[in-house]
Amino acid sequence: MIGRLAIIGVGLIGGSLSLALKKAGMVKEVIGYSRTEQIHQQAVNLGVIDKSAASIAEAVRDADIIFIAVPIASMSSILVEIAESVRDGTIITDGCSVKVHVVTAAKHALGNNFSRFIPGHPIAGTEHSGTKAAYASLYQNHRVILTPVKQTNSRALSIVRSMWQATGAEVSDMEAEYHDIVLAATSHLPHVLAFNLVGMLAECDNCDDILQYAAGGFRDFSRIVSSDAVMWRDICLSNKDAILGLLRQYHQDLRKIEEAIKEEDGDFLIDVFGRAKQARDVRFNGNIN
Amino acid sequence: MIGRLAIIGVGLIGGSLSLALKKAGMVKEVIGYSRTEQIHQQAVNLGVIDKSAASIAEAVRDADIIFIAVPIASMSSILVEIAESVRDGTIITDGCSVKVHVVTAAKHALGNNFSRFIPGHPIAGTEHSGTKAAYASLYQNHRVILTPVKQTNSRALSIVRSMWQATGAEVSDMEAEYHDIVLAATSHLPHVLAFNLVGMLAECDNCDDILQYAAGGFRDFSRIVSSDAVMWRDICLSNKDAILGLLRQYHQDLRKIEEAIKEEDGDFLIDVFGRAKQARDVRFNGNIN
Repeated sequence: MIGRLAIIGVGLIGGSLSLALKKAGMVKEVIGYSRTEQIHQQAVNLGVIDKSAASIAEAVRDADIIFIAVPIASMSSILVEIAESVRDGTIITDGCSVKVHVVTAAKHALGNNFSRFIPGHPIAGTEHSGTKAAYASLYQNHRVILTPVKQTNSRALSIVRSMWQATGAEVSDMEAEYHDIVLAATSHLPHVLAFNLVGMLAECDNCDDILQYAAGGFRDFSRIVSSDAVMWRDICLSNKDAILGLLRQYHQDLRKIEEAIKEEDGDFLIDVFGRAKQARDVRFNGNIN
Repeated sequence: MIGRLAIIGVGLIGGSLSLALKKAGMVKEVIGYSRTEQIHQQAVNLGVIDKSAASIAEAVRDADIIFIAVPIASMSSILVEIAESVRDGTIITDGCSVKVHVVTAAKHALGNNFSRFIPGHPIAGTEHSGTKAAYASLYQNHRVILTPVKQTNSRALSIVRSMWQATGAEVSDMEAEYHDIVLAATSHLPHVLAFNLVGMLAECDNCDDILQYAAGGFRDFSRIVSSDAVMWRDICLSNKDAILGLLRQYHQDLRKIEEAIKEEDGDFLIDVFGRAKQARDVRFNGNIN
């Protein structure tokens, strides 16, 4: 049971954690902080949080756990603000989708409190965002990855793990570096690829209005393109090495498919397409969505 | 009202046309032909067709309209078989997703009957296939593209247009060459891009089991990868020029995004991502899915 949870950034991610823990009876009180007054009011009215704080200092002062769910570009400054007001013993964790960058910023900002910082990433979300989009079952059967480092306090790690398990998530630990490759491969790269295709077709000189012929397959393929451009700029810049490494490989593999189409090497195409289909079907017939 | 419709290939596409026209009261009798006896039986039992023919010759002999819904690789040989038995005046149309290839094959196979061949492409489908997957509303609010040529008989064109309109589809005409570019851009290229990514991650040396961390965004992005590998090999080889042309452009544009990530040119990324998001949102808030 968590006494007081402070949520910094009461959007889809932060708000849904609050709702899930309240529903599970795992938290006594949730205090939230957001940059805009309007969201404070909305979050309290919707019952997403119990009360709102006028400042980060007020939000974190008596917190047992602080969950930071802000855009990655704000992480460094938020961590600095938290460091100024956090009391000894408070556990700090976050939900950013890039981890090496966050671990580095936390080490820099938190000083002695760094051992109680548990870098985390709930792999869940929708293309909607904001307090209104938050719901209690967002994390059910989804994965949460924690990326502790050698200084990490094991009791703090275990408390954050239990917190996420209470939301119905499946929690696993991973090195921050590997996390960033995994996410570049399964999330950041698909976003870049889909953004690139839709951006290209939107600008296409000789194919005015071509997107009007796009059907269901394209709609699903490009759903991730409806995400916020600023957020994705920041993710790309924060996880640059992993994304660039995978893009190199992607170009190479795509060249092989091009070559096979050019040379009419049908066997090569069947091999790649068939392997891909099998891997995809194995993954998504399971229960972890 | 169509007296007798012959459907060659009673799968999702052919079966759904039959069901839609029956439901609309637009056809007296549907006779179907499929390569395997089992599908004949199933199609009749499910009420997808009224009767089954033992051969293409039997199916097309007394047909007013013939709809060919077979894999693109079978089109040439099916057209030759049809040409041997079709009676004078019968309208022939198809549902292949590549049109230049089919028009060339039809011109070659059909001789004098070529003027009554209406190349068509209903842009609809699911990742499921087969007679069992067929349903009457598949084409509702979906686009059907017809690609007549200068020899095309205008009465035949108008009859096929009315047939598709009766299914609830929105029918438009287009040059075959432009159709193939439109489909390469909105369907074939997304398939190749998604096949390539999933194929690459399935083989990745240092990232065993990486796909287990793929979440909802990846699931939607890669849904098209669950399609049949043989069908997609054949589409790639039949629409090779359009696909290769777009792939060249895709590589170039992707290089620009890579460069922007490398140089931390956030403005460039915002510009591409934002344009893509806007174009995508405009397209899929409309009614034609």
